[in-house]
Amino acid sequence: MTEPLFDRVAILGIGLIGSSLARVIRREDMARTVVAGDTGPGVAERALELGIVDEATTDLAQAVRDADLVVLCAPVGVSDQIARTIAPSLKPGAIVTDVGSVKLRVIEMVTPELPDTVHFVPGHPLAGTEKSGPDAGFAQVFQGRWCVLTPLPDTNPDALEKVSEMWRRAGMAIEIMDPAHHDRVLAITSHLPHLIAYTIVGTASNMETQMSREVVRFSATGFRDFTRIAGSDPIMWRDIFLNNRDAVLDVLQRFTEDLTALQRAIRWGEGEVLEELFSRTRAIRKAVIDAKQA
Amino acid sequence: MTEPLFDRVAILGIGLIGSSLARVIRREDMARTVVAGDTGPGVAERALELGIVDEATTDLAQAVRDADLVVLCAPVGVSDQIARTIAPSLKPGAIVTDVGSVKLRVIEMVTPELPDTVHFVPGHPLAGTEKSGPDAGFAQVFQGRWCVLTPLPDTNPDALEKVSEMWRRAGMAIEIMDPAHHDRVLAITSHLPHLIAYTIVGTASNMETQMSREVVRFSATGFRDFTRIAGSDPIMWRDIFLNNRDAVLDVLQRFTEDLTALQRAIRWGEGEVLEELFSRTRAIRKAVIDAKQA
Repeated sequence: MTEPLFDRVAILGIGLIGSSLARVIRREDMARTVVAGDTGPGVAERALELGIVDEATTDLAQAVRDADLVVLCAPVGVSDQIARTIAPSLKPGAIVTDVGSVKLRVIEMVTPELPDTVHFVPGHPLAGTEKSGPDAGFAQVFQGRWCVLTPLPDTNPDALEKVSEMWRRAGMAIEIMDPAHHDRVLAITSHLPHLIAYTIVGTASNMETQMSREVVRFSATGFRDFTRIAGSDPIMWRDIFLNNRDAVLDVLQRFTEDLTALQRAIRWGEGEVLEELFSRTRAIRKAVIDAKQA
Repeated sequence: MTEPLFDRVAILGIGLIGSSLARVIRREDMARTVVAGDTGPGVAERALELGIVDEATTDLAQAVRDADLVVLCAPVGVSDQIARTIAPSLKPGAIVTDVGSVKLRVIEMVTPELPDTVHFVPGHPLAGTEKSGPDAGFAQVFQGRWCVLTPLPDTNPDALEKVSEMWRRAGMAIEIMDPAHHDRVLAITSHLPHLIAYTIVGTASNMETQMSREVVRFSATGFRDFTRIAGSDPIMWRDIFLNNRDAVLDVLQRFTEDLTALQRAIRWGEGEVLEELFSRTRAIRKAVIDAKQA
């Protein structure tokens, strides 16, 4: 049997990712005690009921007391507020990490709030579904996926290694990245696709009533996949767009230019422009399949 | 045992949909003989090898001889050319139907070419995957999906009923629609989503080389679903956009306006605009799930 990595782990925000992490920590025996801290009505209690944590509280400062690992799993927009709330209660030597989909802003928000005696390891496990809440989590969600860690120049190497080891035991492959680069890669692979999906589903719902009923009815031919993505947690995604603004606006600009070019090709009947692009994107699909990310 | 619906069926274009139809016709014993006609190199032959048709030929006029049902399953752009090729060989009283994703233009292209002695029933089974070719087909693809038929005022009711019955036996529910309305509904549920997916995958591939490698590597968080859609058949989709131009340009314009509004909300940090939309789209996702189209 492997030695538990941690004595006491506090998970702040016990939604889809937080509760999945609690489950995998238990499955892999990574900690002696897991505490859920969540201020949402009934959420912490629900995690306790599900039997995935040992203790649960709505008092975040209470949750982190004596923890040697604190994992921030709340929407990124409240990172600074949570860091401020827990700072006085953090045990010296504790490791603080996060799972936010944005890294530069989270680092800016969290770092100044934390005492010098704790180690901050910014991270982002690339895992999840469109669902949310503690009931939606499952230990397997991390299996075979990437976890990006974006340590700072002064990040403690032992803390980085312990966080890495936790995600490895959860089934993830670790990738170390510069935070700004992370934010650009995610802007194109994740944030822009979500923004587009939200938009197109919104556009459909704005059409006349009969049409939007039919859109739902006949959604199996493309639209359906967009509704799945656009069913993701509204607060989480609001915070991502507001906190990765520059990178999102940059890729959005590129996307709009490319879309305008296609629009023009359709208007003028330039079939060869469409065919050339559609053949190129098919090759990328093949690359995704070959990279076993399909 | 049910009576075979047809004596001899000719399927012109034995790709994903054509070969799936051949398979389901065999499974349900809907015809005594099924003929594949396909001018693609080796395609008709491959269908014969797969054992899903009784006869195969690259000569489309030959394929339709004596057929009492002819199903056009080629990309919509060649509909007029195929209709012209087969017209002199069609048996009087034969039914001609199609599976094209665009209806107005197909009707415009096919109707004038066909002799008055045959019955044309324009149709569109809303089924498929991103794959193509006779190996990619499977009989189950139609199960539980919608088949839209867009008969003309003078369409023969018996012919309409026979085509409906074929798709019902394939597992589909029939919806009768006006062709122009079909084209508008599909523009938003299918054509626009595909155009957007093609664009975003193209935008990603245009980014610098290192970035596009990483886009593939970290595609699991949204981008992946778009690459699947953007892996669809290039010729088929080129023809759809060129032949449903007005409806596609109309929904694209609405989409662009909505996207611009979101872009502005992100730039100006208007979280409530984002949150309101994201909550609304989540309700639509629920409607899609409730309609059992998820």
